[in-house]
Amino acid sequence: MASEQSATAVITAKRDGGELSDAQIDWVIDAYTRGTVADEQMAALAMAIVWRGMTRREIARWTAAMIASGQRMSFPELNRPTVDKHSTGGVGDKITLPLAPLVAACGAAVPQLSGRGLGHTGGTLDKLESIPGWQADLAPDRMREILADPAIGAVVCAAGADLAPADKRLYALRDVTGTVESIPLIASSIMSKKIAEGTSALVLDVKVGSGAFMKDLDSARELAATMVELGADSGVRTVALLTAMDAPLGRAVGNALEVAESVEVLAGDGPADVVELTLALAREMLAQAGIHDVDPADALADGRAMDRWRAMVRAQGGEPDAALPTARLREQISAPRAGIVARVDALRVGRAAWLLGAGRARQGDAIDHAAGIEVHVRPGDRVAAGQPLYTLHADRPELVGDACEVLHASYTIGEAEVTPSPLVLDRISR
Amino acid sequence: MASEQSATAVITAKRDGGELSDAQIDWVIDAYTRGTVADEQMAALAMAIVWRGMTRREIARWTAAMIASGQRMSFPELNRPTVDKHSTGGVGDKITLPLAPLVAACGAAVPQLSGRGLGHTGGTLDKLESIPGWQADLAPDRMREILADPAIGAVVCAAGADLAPADKRLYALRDVTGTVESIPLIASSIMSKKIAEGTSALVLDVKVGSGAFMKDLDSARELAATMVELGADSGVRTVALLTAMDAPLGRAVGNALEVAESVEVLAGDGPADVVELTLALAREMLAQAGIHDVDPADALADGRAMDRWRAMVRAQGGEPDAALPTARLREQISAPRAGIVARVDALRVGRAAWLLGAGRARQGDAIDHAAGIEVHVRPGDRVAAGQPLYTLHADRPELVGDACEVLHASYTIGEAEVTPSPLVLDRISR
Repeated sequence: MASEQSATAVITAKRDGGELSDAQIDWVIDAYTRGTVADEQMAALAMAIVWRGMTRREIARWTAAMIASGQRMSFPELNRPTVDKHSTGGVGDKITLPLAPLVAACGAAVPQLSGRGLGHTGGTLDKLESIPGWQADLAPDRMREILADPAIGAVVCAAGADLAPADKRLYALRDVTGTVESIPLIASSIMSKKIAEGTSALVLDVKVGSGAFMKDLDSARELAATMVELGADSGVRTVALLTAMDAPLGRAVGNALEVAESVEVLAGDGPADVVELTLALAREMLAQAGIHDVDPADALADGRAMDRWRAMVRAQGGEPDAALPTARLREQISAPRAGIVARVDALRVGRAAWLLGAGRARQGDAIDHAAGIEVHVRPGDRVAAGQPLYTLHADRPELVGDACEVLHASYTIGEAEVTPSPLVLDRISR
Repeated sequence: MASEQSATAVITAKRDGGELSDAQIDWVIDAYTRGTVADEQMAALAMAIVWRGMTRREIARWTAAMIASGQRMSFPELNRPTVDKHSTGGVGDKITLPLAPLVAACGAAVPQLSGRGLGHTGGTLDKLESIPGWQADLAPDRMREILADPAIGAVVCAAGADLAPADKRLYALRDVTGTVESIPLIASSIMSKKIAEGTSALVLDVKVGSGAFMKDLDSARELAATMVELGADSGVRTVALLTAMDAPLGRAVGNALEVAESVEVLAGDGPADVVELTLALAREMLAQAGIHDVDPADALADGRAMDRWRAMVRAQGGEPDAALPTARLREQISAPRAGIVARVDALRVGRAAWLLGAGRARQGDAIDHAAGIEVHVRPGDRVAAGQPLYTLHADRPELVGDACEVLHASYTIGEAEVTPSPLVLDRISR
């Protein structure tokens, strides 16, 4: 049968609300990877999946087929447990940077294959590339060396072309075809990469709120539960924290700014929310790795995490003591009146940083590592008239106007007392 | 704004159940025609339209935008009214062949730009190309000459590349992406071509039943009403007949076989249902053209329609007296027992003819003009055991087995009397 006909049969089955068979899923993912199912056919199928959803069985098979499209790694040579963390993406979410060396300092190995950012949430590799000399691309053997090194044990690098290649194509396709917002497609995309990277345990940070993909707790719980099941079914111990993403995380949004803030945290300082979330995720990761006798707060306080960070940066060619890039231009936005900050909208702050050049509009675009926003207030803070709310960091003056406009709509100052909401909202395990 | 972002905005608006603005529709159709909206983006949008539908306003604007993607023809130089017919496609539907010369013989001009077949229903151009020498491609000036010729006045030719080019791309895309079955997309596709071809009046033959796109009367009525509105809004007087397509039309299915049957009708003979539908559509076309004093039955009986047919075939290089291609192989399927024919399934007969080579699997495939099926019985006929039901015409013996298998499942012989259902089921006008 001609491939169009088979692809059309799969598309129309899902379009009409049917359940795809294992054979149909295996075929369509394999044929898409080989290029015999065309982008336009996969786009139509993705939209039909957004419409009709997928059953647990379909999602599991879809994920397995994407893993099988490439190589699945494993690290039998390590004498330590492996554990990784994945965040669904938030504004100012630099947690991986202090977290990976912290968990390594506590005795686990962290083999994180990561990606670049698209849209208003930045990518971990983009942040690390602010560090002079740091390289995201590592040969597999070098990655294993760093993981096995007793003084390092953590690696954050670019996923090779052979890690879930079906997902790579599909992820880029969904981005331009309005088919990102689908729990089955999001869950299978994340978990295919994390399972293929070979980690034995995984902690998911599922963001909830205005700055996150998941706007409400119910959909975040569904996404988390779906991913926890997928992990467990594939032999990866998986747990998820649901964490708030209404306001930006920490004070820094933008690549070099976030690296600087991460180093503050590793030095035992830094914003309280970033420290809190780093420790909460570290405790979950260590528990999943079977390490119960180490308190990560100690490793943060006594400099062990910082030592690992410096070793980890050096292992990938980076110079931890080099100055980070800074922007030529600073622009301040101040409170127009006194009051209590009721709202700092993560989505708008992220969008403003993106407008300044901190993010990319399409894959392959260059980004400005120095561009970004310092956020000086949080919901609940009392401010005086004229007190700084944001500092914009920009290299291109012509970008500042649009970013300011977005930021002016990003906050509310009221009269009422505001009780800050908790950071960790729920925990989902099997 | 980058085109991906705008395309994504249009896709997500429709995906989320919103109504597209005029500006969004104009932009997306124009950008798709120019190639800045990619096939995968239009495929996702098409699936979102299958899902969410379109309002009357959206369909009208979508149709207008597709017309505006190319040239809209008109025939102000003709001193006769123009009128055309379009069928949504049925098995054995050769009606255009006797109908166009018949209506021309009665005083109207018929400027039909037609297409080729895909799937189980044949295309009018494919049928006419069975005639030795006949050419589907005509220069616009030659088309006008033939239309103006008092001895011809009817032309059935291929639509040029400049007739609704957006629809040409979208039609091919929908075919391979499971997005054919959408009333807004079907209606706008048909009507953009018919309005752009410049006819002043139009009669639609909307097929209903197992062998048609529309399986039930309700959806056929909705499609018909949508198209009648679209025509009226664009200044084309439009009426629709809903006609039965459960059994094949006439006795011939396949290109040369259908030409032969059409010539029988033009000679005053031919199957009763083909004659009935030809006359019903001719009366509607003449009424829409404002010609009320001519009975098409007379023009069929006295040979005037046949004269027009011969002139029309010659005008496009065809030789009306040349022998039509015949297949090397004949195979008969006979009634296994006596009884009354309860069912002759149009879809399966069409599929069997397609399997024999009468249709194409993908655009550009060659077809076998001689291949096809003679259908010897109709629902309600009494048959004896061993009486012929079908004769298969094939050039390639290896194709016969599959076609026979499909045909064996295409009929039912029972005991009960069967009252044949009417051919014309409803009439939709504004």
